[in-house]
Amino acid sequence: MAEAKVLSGAGLRGQVAGQTALSTVGQAGAGLTYRGYDVRELAADAQFEEVAYLLLYGELPTQSELAAYTAKLSKLRDLPQALKEVLERIPADAHPMDVMRTGCSFLGNIEPEKDFSAQHDVTDRLLAAFPAIMCYWYRFSHDGKRINCVTDEASIGGHFLHLLHDKKPSELHVKVMNVSLILYAEHEFNASTFTARVCASTLSDLYSCVTAAIGSLRGPLHGGANEAAMEMIERFSSPEDAVKGTLGMLERKDKIMGFGHAIYKDSDPRNEVIKGWSKKLADEVGDKVLFAVSEAIDKTMWEQKKLFPNADFYHASAYHFMGIPTKLFTPIFVCSRLTGWAAHVFEQRANNRIIRPSAEYVGVEQRKFVPIERR
Amino acid sequence: MAEAKVLSGAGLRGQVAGQTALSTVGQAGAGLTYRGYDVRELAADAQFEEVAYLLLYGELPTQSELAAYTAKLSKLRDLPQALKEVLERIPADAHPMDVMRTGCSFLGNIEPEKDFSAQHDVTDRLLAAFPAIMCYWYRFSHDGKRINCVTDEASIGGHFLHLLHDKKPSELHVKVMNVSLILYAEHEFNASTFTARVCASTLSDLYSCVTAAIGSLRGPLHGGANEAAMEMIERFSSPEDAVKGTLGMLERKDKIMGFGHAIYKDSDPRNEVIKGWSKKLADEVGDKVLFAVSEAIDKTMWEQKKLFPNADFYHASAYHFMGIPTKLFTPIFVCSRLTGWAAHVFEQRANNRIIRPSAEYVGVEQRKFVPIERR
Repeated sequence: MAEAKVLSGAGLRGQVAGQTALSTVGQAGAGLTYRGYDVRELAADAQFEEVAYLLLYGELPTQSELAAYTAKLSKLRDLPQALKEVLERIPADAHPMDVMRTGCSFLGNIEPEKDFSAQHDVTDRLLAAFPAIMCYWYRFSHDGKRINCVTDEASIGGHFLHLLHDKKPSELHVKVMNVSLILYAEHEFNASTFTARVCASTLSDLYSCVTAAIGSLRGPLHGGANEAAMEMIERFSSPEDAVKGTLGMLERKDKIMGFGHAIYKDSDPRNEVIKGWSKKLADEVGDKVLFAVSEAIDKTMWEQKKLFPNADFYHASAYHFMGIPTKLFTPIFVCSRLTGWAAHVFEQRANNRIIRPSAEYVGVEQRKFVPIERR
Repeated sequence: MAEAKVLSGAGLRGQVAGQTALSTVGQAGAGLTYRGYDVRELAADAQFEEVAYLLLYGELPTQSELAAYTAKLSKLRDLPQALKEVLERIPADAHPMDVMRTGCSFLGNIEPEKDFSAQHDVTDRLLAAFPAIMCYWYRFSHDGKRINCVTDEASIGGHFLHLLHDKKPSELHVKVMNVSLILYAEHEFNASTFTARVCASTLSDLYSCVTAAIGSLRGPLHGGANEAAMEMIERFSSPEDAVKGTLGMLERKDKIMGFGHAIYKDSDPRNEVIKGWSKKLADEVGDKVLFAVSEAIDKTMWEQKKLFPNADFYHASAYHFMGIPTKLFTPIFVCSRLTGWAAHVFEQRANNRIIRPSAEYVGVEQRKFVPIERR
């Protein structure tokens, strides 16, 4: 074996592991672009389904393309009976990301991706079915109710809220879900996306890639930050309490979730967007505490540490104001990031070499086997 | 963002992505070592359970440690009723790796890894339960039989054969399964193991890491080579036919599975071991065709291309002689490689930084959003 090259950054940080045409992260002029479009412009004026189409099919759709696409997705929302029966066997105290991972994996058994020509259809199926996988399990295990997985909601965000709350969501809530799904859709070679690409590089099927990515997103260093932020925010009863509490956490060197970023150095472009919508929701529900507490933590983190809120921090309060249980925050991330994961799988397949790095050996020298009688 | 470093090798080939004390691959003097021991010595004189213990716990066990370990594993073989019911909902024509992926993922819902102090117990549970996950589904979907998942077989290999064939396996077959499980147990930063480490680097749970790794091993560029080799070998009726057929495939530049290796340059140290056992099995069953055909392909590949058989090639005939259906070859690989995957997850957790590389952007320049009415 040729001598392998030792990389300087642990965790491959700052090392280029492949090419992508899907997004840029942290470049000047636009903190985050999807296929060249500033995510802030997309969040302001596009539907999530347009953004999904952009990522998966390469360009923003025309009106007739979008109509055909949303009609296709609407027809794919229901779950097969066998999958419902599997979800009914998962207890209420299971980790919701385990549910998403298992639901995705199980569907791969009964609706397999026969060959790569089916990759768009499988992705669209998952995009349409994920809200029902999450909500069918949640409502059955928590409320004992077998929900109807079909709604007449036009959007994926509205469909999710309708399944969760069993009623038509408000226009504002549909809009915020739409924005949120856009903001989380794609983020270059983050750990879950890179997991999907490593899996895809063996030419495995799309369900395997997405299942693997869900497993990575489940990790508290990756997808769980908005849940952790919510748990922290809820502990404080007033802005003053929040300032005091944050200072205490900083002094104890506690990990404070929802701030800073591995790639962004000055700010996270998604933050200003979701913060604005969280404020609108706070006004709508007449909140006097949660948003003010969030701002107090935000201000304290900046003053003390020059750390800025990332996409996750104000997502916590925004989701909370819409009545979404904290444990479902990361599964919503799945419903959105699926689009990025799948688009990366398509890219990997189109120009593939199996991802197989080397390791630096730091173990014991070669040694002679000793039979068990003589150990 | 600082300018990311562009690596020379696609697929991170030849790039060190981390450290390991678990194995060396392709180093002089021993083609493959597990914690310093030559895999050929382990395959000759150790039980698979000793090797699993070596990888997972750091050293070869004493006799009393091994006795306690195998007793523990034996008690963990049965499946929860809910998991059996899930497996019963997977059709016979499903991909067996989808079954393994789903079985592993589902178990994570009902027996979660509560924290990392449970990592050894979860691994032992999966090690004990995987043969039953595979065989319960296989026997139910193919034979309509709900098998008893508990046997009194001392070894994992014997337990698997017993579940599959519903009878006590011969000593020779138990020995060959043992050797096979040892040979496949660990192989440094291959794609499935690297998948497990990327997933582990988000501090996700062990089920997620193993589920993700199964998804990667499923890919035909990775785990499926022994199945593909079997399908090729079975096509030929004699050594002469095999030579002619192989030459034809080479001329048509068909992909021939089971030869060459990404890391090994001259030979795969596992080949000589499994080839010897395949020969013994051929003699036992009175085979006059399959082994001779395998040798004819082997000889032709060397003469024509200087390509050597890797671990997978003679595994095909060996498994076949023991009456194992071809579609279960890669799931057996899962039962073995689980030990390496889990040991790598332990390593990653012990010295973690999230694995988050960068990408080279090759997409369109930044562009202005155009509202849908004007597209």
